[in-house]
Amino acid sequence: MNPDVQILRGLRMAGEAGASGAALAKQLGVSRAAVWNRIEDLRRHGYEIEASPHHGYILRASPDALHGDDLMARLPSPKAIGRDIRVFTETASTNDVVEKLARDGLPEGAVVFAEAQSGGRGRLGRTWVSPAGVGLWFSILLRPRLHPTSATQLTVLAAVAVARAIERQTTLRPAIKWPNDVLVGHRKVAGILLEMSAELDRIRHAVLGIGIDVNVPAEAFPESIRTVATSLAAEAGHPIDRPALATQVLAELDHLYARLNAGDFHEVGDEWMRRCSTLGQHVTIHMGPRAVAGRAEALDEDGALLVRTEHGVLERIVGGDVTLDRRA
Amino acid sequence: MNPDVQILRGLRMAGEAGASGAALAKQLGVSRAAVWNRIEDLRRHGYEIEASPHHGYILRASPDALHGDDLMARLPSPKAIGRDIRVFTETASTNDVVEKLARDGLPEGAVVFAEAQSGGRGRLGRTWVSPAGVGLWFSILLRPRLHPTSATQLTVLAAVAVARAIERQTTLRPAIKWPNDVLVGHRKVAGILLEMSAELDRIRHAVLGIGIDVNVPAEAFPESIRTVATSLAAEAGHPIDRPALATQVLAELDHLYARLNAGDFHEVGDEWMRRCSTLGQHVTIHMGPRAVAGRAEALDEDGALLVRTEHGVLERIVGGDVTLDRRA
Repeated sequence: MNPDVQILRGLRMAGEAGASGAALAKQLGVSRAAVWNRIEDLRRHGYEIEASPHHGYILRASPDALHGDDLMARLPSPKAIGRDIRVFTETASTNDVVEKLARDGLPEGAVVFAEAQSGGRGRLGRTWVSPAGVGLWFSILLRPRLHPTSATQLTVLAAVAVARAIERQTTLRPAIKWPNDVLVGHRKVAGILLEMSAELDRIRHAVLGIGIDVNVPAEAFPESIRTVATSLAAEAGHPIDRPALATQVLAELDHLYARLNAGDFHEVGDEWMRRCSTLGQHVTIHMGPRAVAGRAEALDEDGALLVRTEHGVLERIVGGDVTLDRRA
Repeated sequence: MNPDVQILRGLRMAGEAGASGAALAKQLGVSRAAVWNRIEDLRRHGYEIEASPHHGYILRASPDALHGDDLMARLPSPKAIGRDIRVFTETASTNDVVEKLARDGLPEGAVVFAEAQSGGRGRLGRTWVSPAGVGLWFSILLRPRLHPTSATQLTVLAAVAVARAIERQTTLRPAIKWPNDVLVGHRKVAGILLEMSAELDRIRHAVLGIGIDVNVPAEAFPESIRTVATSLAAEAGHPIDRPALATQVLAELDHLYARLNAGDFHEVGDEWMRRCSTLGQHVTIHMGPRAVAGRAEALDEDGALLVRTEHGVLERIVGGDVTLDRRA
């Protein structure tokens, strides 16, 4: 393990009690001078680390910037997601970075964050505005043993994890709009883009891209989407701690992904239904040239939406754009 | 257009009548000396080109080796498939080459052949033995406007195109085994591997890999598959012209793909059903840990197999391994 991960984990576990240079040096198998060098380097990156003669090193404050080592330090024992975390200052698209690394053997569960994306993508080729330092723009490599037709389970899982994390780290009460938007007060705060490399009967790998508008100022959204998009900070009325939220999302994802791999999608599916603002609504779903209108009744075991049409037929919808139908 | 494509097309169109150096030079907008240089180069590549004082140049024979320019020359006006054809001496996998080129903007319908593959793949991560100079190992880039759940249409289409081409270029009568094997006399002569880059509700691009055991000697097959695999030459009793067969397959694919894009999958689906040795049979289909047994009844509009189980339920099968059940 990277020494900075070990030092930050040691400091975070010690808390106010402090961690002595001697103890950290022993844990890392290096000299106290080497520990001091690493601490100095962390200070240069914005970590406020107090050195007390009695208590040793105490971490007083962390920067809001994302650091892969620190995120790994905050996740003590991930089963899969978060074992490898990399942070880029800027990329075109974190999904593209992970896709490329996947072909070079990147391990499952590796996560790539970018402080800014110059070519962030949403679903169906749309743009995802990703300004620097105010959001969480990241992608996760998964190699799930799922049939491609069950891939919706991954976006359902991600929406639940993001909603849970927002709820735990803020005072907000997020809702989910099928299939993969997380809303606060009817406006979107997070989106999920799943891209797969698949054969007809197996997923080779999947890249789960997540964008969360954490501290994005309202004026950073293009005017065309201001009525439908917002940020957690705008809704909460104060800035949100990005590294803490990132950690929480990854921890929730890791937990739920392990459940999915154990064949237990029920927990996720049930929670999705409780949180889903789409269920029970009259909706129109546009799927390319086709549209289906009806009442969103349930989610099936593969994460597909079951819509009862006006003719009483239950249609199974795998993907598409949902519009709420206000007339009903 | 590449001058070699133009010269070869001119020679093939002229046939026994011959094409004059002056006419070819005018067509290409170059000097007669330049035409002569290209002809000399083609001769070095194994093209037997007679130079007659009266008739000009006459193409007497072509090598069995694959040349991208010649394959393009043989396909006069492809709608999509075959507009760009590249031949590699050896690659790990033509699917991987196309996948990489796809990300660099390779146009739809581009085809990559390899005389040999060192890491040829079959479905589900299996190996595809691809010895040099005796098979057709190639991949095609498609950007179909299909929902991922309809991707089976592409493999159905490919199986029909390969079966048609074999029938037109040989005396053999191929059959299709669902979803994507082409058989002669109950043994496999060709396989199809479709790999996709997809979101939940759209295919970004698909790589259609096709392997045809044309002149593969029986001893080149691993012993474990000799009872289930054969080659066209072994079945026909004589070598088959590879470039002619390759051209025929691409022409059939181009025609059927245009029909698919025009919303007309019926022609392909109907022909698939006529050729399908799986329909009407009692089969067991293994899909990872799950298996379904029953009578293969039909193909639905998305290319899925409809199997009537012993309980009378009609199951829709998207992918899997089919075993014929001989007891029935």
